[in-house]
Parts: sequence; C-alpha cells; structure tokens
Amino acid sequence: MLTLFAAKNTVAFASHIALEETGLAYQINWISFADGDQLKPDYLALNPKGRVPALVTDDGVLTETPATLEYIAETSGQLMPDTAFDRAKVREMLSYCTSTFHVNHAHKMRGARWSDDVAAQATMQAKVPQTMAASCAYIEDQLTGDWVAGAYSIADIHVHTICRWLEGDGVDIADYPKLHAHFGRMQARAAVRRVSDAHG
Amino acid sequence: MLTLFAAKNTVAFASHIALEETGLAYQINWISFADGDQLKPDYLALNPKGRVPALVTDDGVLTETPATLEYIAETSGQLMPDTAFDRAKVREMLSYCTSTFHVNHAHKMRGARWSDDVAAQATMQAKVPQTMAASCAYIEDQLTGDWVAGAYSIADIHVHTICRWLEGDGVDIADYPKLHAHFGRMQARAAVRRVSDAHG
Repeated sequence: MLTLFAAKNTVAFASHIALEETGLAYQINWISFADGDQLKPDYLALNPKGRVPALVTDDGVLTETPATLEYIAETSGQLMPDTAFDRAKVREMLSYCTSTFHVNHAHKMRGARWSDDVAAQATMQAKVPQTMAASCAYIEDQLTGDWVAGAYSIADIHVHTICRWLEGDGVDIADYPKLHAHFGRMQARAAVRRVSDAHG
Repeated sequence: MLTLFAAKNTVAFASHIALEETGLAYQINWISFADGDQLKPDYLALNPKGRVPALVTDDGVLTETPATLEYIAETSGQLMPDTAFDRAKVREMLSYCTSTFHVNHAHKMRGARWSDDVAAQATMQAKVPQTMAASCAYIEDQLTGDWVAGAYSIADIHVHTICRWLEGDGVDIADYPKLHAHFGRMQARAAVRRVSDAHG
C-alpha cells in the first residue's frame, strides 16, 4: 500500500493522478497548507523540506514530483514510453516543469524563499504572468502530437497540473492552441476527473 | 556518437562527468556564456531555452541535466542503482538539485529571470548564502553513506557539480562534514579530475 501526503490543488495533484491512472493500491493523507500542516513536526519527520508530495512506500519515503511520478510509473509498468530517447523526453519535460515552470509560478506566493524584502517580492509577483507565458510558449513549441512524448505519460500529468494554475497566474491558456487542446484531453480522462473532484 | 554542448564550469559539467565515467563515445562542443553563444540562433535552434546542456543524440536533442544524465546512465547501463526505490531516491536528488539547489544559486546572477527591478535582484543576491546553506544542510541530513543512494550514481554527480559553486556563493562546505567528505570522494575520481581539468 502506498500513502500519498497531499494538499489540495498543489503539485501533489500530479502524483495523485498517476496513482489513480495506474490502479496501484493507495490512500491519500490530506494535509492543509492553510493550517500550516506541512511545517508541523509530524510532517517534517516525513519530509524535512516541508513541501508536498510525500509518498510513503514499503521501502521508505519519497519526495519530489518527478521522482514520485516515475516511481509510480516504474512499479506499475505504465505511463512511460518504450524507447530510451522517448523516456528521456519525458524526463526532460518533468525537469522543465519542476525547475522552471513551477519555479516561475512560485515567485507569486513564495517569493520569501529568495528575498527577505517585501517590495522585492512584489516585483517578482508582477513578473509571473510574463514568465508563465514564456513557459507556455516553450511547451506549445514542444508539443508536436497529442502528448509530450508519443504516448500519454507522467510528463503530460505534470504539465497539466501546472497548467491548472495559469488562470490565477494571469495567463489565458487559449493563447496557446496546442497546450489548450492538451488541457482538454487531460480533463476528458476519467482518472483526471476523479482526482479533480477530490481536490474540489 | 553523442555531442554535448557545454559551457565551462556550468551545470553541463555534470553531463560531462557522466559521459567520461561511462566510456560512451562522445565529443564536446564548447560554447561561451561570456560571448553569449547560448542566445545565438544556431544554439537556440538546438535548445530554444538558451541554456546548457544540450546533448545531441542519433535520435534528437536532449536538454535538462536530469534527463541527459539518466539518458547517459540508461544507454550505458551504469550510474544507476539496482532497485526501483533506490532509483527513485536518485531521481529525488536530481529533482532537488535542479528545482531547489540550482535555483537558489541562480538567484545570484540570474535574478532578472524573476524580477525586472535591479534593487530587487540585489536583495535576491543577498539571500543566496542563506538558501545555499539551507540546501547543504538538507543534503548533509540525507547522506547516510558514501553516496546518495547506495552505489555511486548520477545523483552524486549532480550534487558535486553544484557544490563546486558553494565557495563563490559564500558557503564553506567544511561546515557540512558529510558533504565535504563526499566532495573529496568525487574529486578523487579519475573521470572527475579529467573533466575538471577540461573546464579549467
């Protein structure tokens, strides 16, 4: 049994979708960012970074979205393509999502990670629509078929999870036709609808 | 034949070490950040992100350090552990390096990515010693043996590459005894010494 520690509508949404898609046995342990659960001792003992997700496995705890996604894919034998190059393209997009797309978004609400100055944090917030739009333009250019790397994969799940934040970040996904269509394909999946309902 | 596009002493150092460790056939195509090569049309055609590394394979171009590292590991059958859980721990550290450790460092010289305000960028620079120290403390806590996940892997290579920047970021690695010893183990490897000499 796997236990996913998740907060609603955070990046843990991605690991939740992957679990729901694969049919692996799992349970969700919800934590609340509003209540600061991620900084309480019980949670920090699981994940000293104070972030989500944390995936508790029989072998130990895993953190970081790309790692939890690929663990779910690898242990289920699903959601990764067949060739080494296509797998690398999946990992390229996971890395882009976690190191650039998500980091751009984080400068809206989490600027205190990188500056102690409130006025400086406000200048970061102001730039978020621009950096998120640049990320969308990059991904739009990368999408050549229905999915990131041939077949549906964990890379599509990670992209979709961050695209759900675009409206709040001041970006209209309709400006990116291929990414917009990708969003629609993701929303049409039964597993994604179930997870979306659970996150409310 | 693989061709790695690299700039000296950047994060492309990691992919360079992995190639040198595995014995795969490769060549280096040096580009100069000082000359702005990464933003010239020829390079942007390879990597529209204008960053390094870019690894040209027979199947196409790969970017993002975690993806290039694991492609080198997977195609060589080296530098990754034997179990799914240990592989996940390698990917967890790769993700941490690219999304947090490297991003903390980037706020020293690349603040313009996230704020257009020069004074705000200066406040980001001021916090870099603190955020890099926090990353070192996290990794110090994670290191329980000689290597990140059992055997020597691409995760050790990624950690080491960023640790080479610590002195310039105002952090004394000697304050983290396990990480310091890890740094010494890495420097003692013949492949790492050859790559270090090449980067000058």
